[in-house]
Amino acid sequence: MKSEKKAVVLLSGGLDSATLAYYVKAQGYEITAISFSYEQRHKIEMVAAKKISSLVEVREHVWIQTNMTAIGHSSLTDSIPVPKGGRNMEKENHIPLTYVPGRNLIFLSYAVALAESREIHEVFLGINSLDYSGYPDCRPDFLASIQKTSELATKAGREGRPIRIHAPLIKLTKKEIIEMGLQLGVPYEYTWSCYDPKKKGDVYFPCGECDSCLLRKRGFAKAFSPDPLKSMKEE
Amino acid sequence: MKSEKKAVVLLSGGLDSATLAYYVKAQGYEITAISFSYEQRHKIEMVAAKKISSLVEVREHVWIQTNMTAIGHSSLTDSIPVPKGGRNMEKENHIPLTYVPGRNLIFLSYAVALAESREIHEVFLGINSLDYSGYPDCRPDFLASIQKTSELATKAGREGRPIRIHAPLIKLTKKEIIEMGLQLGVPYEYTWSCYDPKKKGDVYFPCGECDSCLLRKRGFAKAFSPDPLKSMKEE
Repeated sequence: MKSEKKAVVLLSGGLDSATLAYYVKAQGYEITAISFSYEQRHKIEMVAAKKISSLVEVREHVWIQTNMTAIGHSSLTDSIPVPKGGRNMEKENHIPLTYVPGRNLIFLSYAVALAESREIHEVFLGINSLDYSGYPDCRPDFLASIQKTSELATKAGREGRPIRIHAPLIKLTKKEIIEMGLQLGVPYEYTWSCYDPKKKGDVYFPCGECDSCLLRKRGFAKAFSPDPLKSMKEE
Repeated sequence: MKSEKKAVVLLSGGLDSATLAYYVKAQGYEITAISFSYEQRHKIEMVAAKKISSLVEVREHVWIQTNMTAIGHSSLTDSIPVPKGGRNMEKENHIPLTYVPGRNLIFLSYAVALAESREIHEVFLGINSLDYSGYPDCRPDFLASIQKTSELATKAGREGRPIRIHAPLIKLTKKEIIEMGLQLGVPYEYTWSCYDPKKKGDVYFPCGECDSCLLRKRGFAKAFSPDPLKSMKEE
């Protein structure tokens, strides 16, 4: 049966956005997923995003290609080394090296444009203010402001049917996200978190040491559940 | 002499943004230009943008490639016919067919990201609320809101050195923009406005009938100045 409820979901292929997609689906929404190919180092993320969008049965999966390296200055897109061993996360409100300038602003702009174009009024993104307190564009005040901006930037918003931006994971810990995902049946073996994977042939292995690997590891440990991801194969 | 004042300028290759670039230069700024290749129909705009950035002597010209057609639903990127004879502009606050969902939101997001990355604190864009009153993202309230959002989205903004977004042409008529540009020596023969050009070999001719051609024509007529653009050659 086709759902009347429609949502745009930002899908990176990571643990958070996969959990988000399953959560949105469980709320009865038909999903239009949007993902980005921006020359990120961890391209295996894209394989994960495709797998998740297929398993969660999205209505449409829109891929945006963009050369974000032209903007640069992040260890996720440049040749700056990815920080290891949690040093990147030490200070509260310190902005990490892995912060990509304006990334969520750019991603949300596309998501809002897509929603406007498809006449969808709900946009979901998996940002989290606890794990990424250092990223300026993962905080609740940013979210409230982009909500207002998107109302003014769109035909829908001007006509009194604003596009609403939802970040249901924003206050959850990684443990809570994983617990929720396990209840929802998220296939975590097809989610990718590592910023700095090792590659053998066409198989990628998480480094286990970058911030993102450490957060994931702690999350599964606290949820008393094994991480089903060992490696992921290129398409 | 290298200027201490630095600005990011959104440069489309159109009449407004070319005038803007010369205006920003005249204010003593060193310019980092940003342009977009988004599969727009009027690709000759890109030739114009390159010519203008070279003539106005920018420090750097960043090109963003993006497949905005994946979002769609505009006569500028889709197969919807470009409206002719001013019918697109008739009603006040009516949103025209040539409106690309979220375009200025997306463009400004990149410009803010670039400014953050280059440690530049001024962003200029050539939007105009008179000619494009129907475009939700050309209005002053949108501009005020994206200013606030960009403060919250960036490291610079969080650290009290916000990136400021300027739209000095927003209240000017096309006549006033052209008069200002003529004073500044803008080479209007290298600016492109037409949404629906005719092509003969590698030479493009403006259609003379789309909204953008009509606005340009009226502007030059009211400024009592001939339009030096007759055609433009592909690179």
